[in-house]
Amino acid sequence: MKLIENWFSERYSDNLQLSFRVKDQLLSVRTDFQRIDVFDTYDFGKLLSIDGTVQLTERDEFVYHEMITMMPFVYSKVKPEKALIIGGGDGGAAGELAKLGLKRIVNVEIDGQVIEVCRKHFPDLVRSFTLENVELIVGDGIKYARTTEEKFDIIIVDSTDPVGPAEGLFNESFYKDIKKILNTGGVVVTQSGSPFYQPTAIGLAHKGMKPHFAKVKSYTAFIPTYPSGFWSFTMASDHDIGKSYRELPAGKYFNKEISASCFSLPEFVKTLIT
Amino acid sequence: MKLIENWFSERYSDNLQLSFRVKDQLLSVRTDFQRIDVFDTYDFGKLLSIDGTVQLTERDEFVYHEMITMMPFVYSKVKPEKALIIGGGDGGAAGELAKLGLKRIVNVEIDGQVIEVCRKHFPDLVRSFTLENVELIVGDGIKYARTTEEKFDIIIVDSTDPVGPAEGLFNESFYKDIKKILNTGGVVVTQSGSPFYQPTAIGLAHKGMKPHFAKVKSYTAFIPTYPSGFWSFTMASDHDIGKSYRELPAGKYFNKEISASCFSLPEFVKTLIT
Repeated sequence: MKLIENWFSERYSDNLQLSFRVKDQLLSVRTDFQRIDVFDTYDFGKLLSIDGTVQLTERDEFVYHEMITMMPFVYSKVKPEKALIIGGGDGGAAGELAKLGLKRIVNVEIDGQVIEVCRKHFPDLVRSFTLENVELIVGDGIKYARTTEEKFDIIIVDSTDPVGPAEGLFNESFYKDIKKILNTGGVVVTQSGSPFYQPTAIGLAHKGMKPHFAKVKSYTAFIPTYPSGFWSFTMASDHDIGKSYRELPAGKYFNKEISASCFSLPEFVKTLIT
Repeated sequence: MKLIENWFSERYSDNLQLSFRVKDQLLSVRTDFQRIDVFDTYDFGKLLSIDGTVQLTERDEFVYHEMITMMPFVYSKVKPEKALIIGGGDGGAAGELAKLGLKRIVNVEIDGQVIEVCRKHFPDLVRSFTLENVELIVGDGIKYARTTEEKFDIIIVDSTDPVGPAEGLFNESFYKDIKKILNTGGVVVTQSGSPFYQPTAIGLAHKGMKPHFAKVKSYTAFIPTYPSGFWSFTMASDHDIGKSYRELPAGKYFNKEISASCFSLPEFVKTLIT
């Protein structure tokens, strides 16, 4: 009988937490930007935490990564060939986009140590960075968006929550730069938090995007290891996002019906977007 | 500074738990059927737990109760006038149905002490049992379905998980009886668990319903205090459940778009239903 149990808990508030029993803590490092931890959990495989919040687990990362890549892929009016990912240092989004056949993927991650940690502990995800059509840049995505002369069909903001290093990724001035580097007929998407526990994040995303894009629409997905299990993404474009422009084979979460129905928002979520 | 913190944890497995900080434990009682606890939590108000699993909290019960009543209401082909609820001893489902204007609601709860506990701690929910058009029966719902000579337009199986007292509510022989007491054009719906943590429950519901009904369809909703935050319901009828037959004003979760889109199942959920 093992007398000591080790648990990693993510505190959703002072009064609520989700706890994973862990076999081992594989790493804990404080970088210039944030604290990174990796745990080997019993139920979810390896788990990456940043500043105490779950970023991904081996068991359920597929939901987040499919929904943040396949959705912009089918709703881009122009056939997507070039994509920019801001954040995404685990390589998951780049890997999904590469599978979708994009010709060029630029991934700008601000914290090089996220990439190093994932290289060691999530090699299957981070392998995408070795692909010939993927360019990995360790740097500030906000600055990159402001200064690059390249344009993209899909832009994915795969960031942490809108506090700390990711705060600027929800700003209106950031989306002004994004607009300039997005091709006509392209789409930009950002993760926009849990409508239940972080009710302001989805509104922030809309507020940042609306001045610059004709259409801004949120969609949701179920992600068991994210706070409340219910997550939002917000997408913007200058064309109608009402119908999809191309078909994709189903993933493990994404399928054709989900790609349309995920735009339906529960009534209380609608009230968060003004 | 308070040195002692009290937490109620629901264990989703040996290796995963969601914990609520509580101001007080208001009640703990073992009945002939199950153990009932009521906690006063900081974030979710009062919380009712049966056998250690969250049944409802004041803050998020609206999702479950809207989705288990409004969905059968709009998908019943016949205008719903008479409803049967099996389980539902908290009165939440009966209350929602009463608001929808049903003429007669019969609520059969097996454990009288659930009703007594809720009468004391959730008076706003349980008040529905005092309405003139609501008949409350303390008894075995399986036996009631087998022996009643009354017929209903909507039948709601608002039970605990398919272990313990609710096990029989997922059986094929139970749905044979349900079929006999369901009016032509009516619908039956049951909660069918978390597709992520209880992957067999949704299949059990289909297996129980399929021999007796032409159409069986599952839908999902996001319920933050239920395991994984993602919950399924399964509905059966002899008519097409593809389109709704009447409109309802939006609730706090339910609205017209949700009533259609909630039938879209993520790919991994489809594989649970054979």
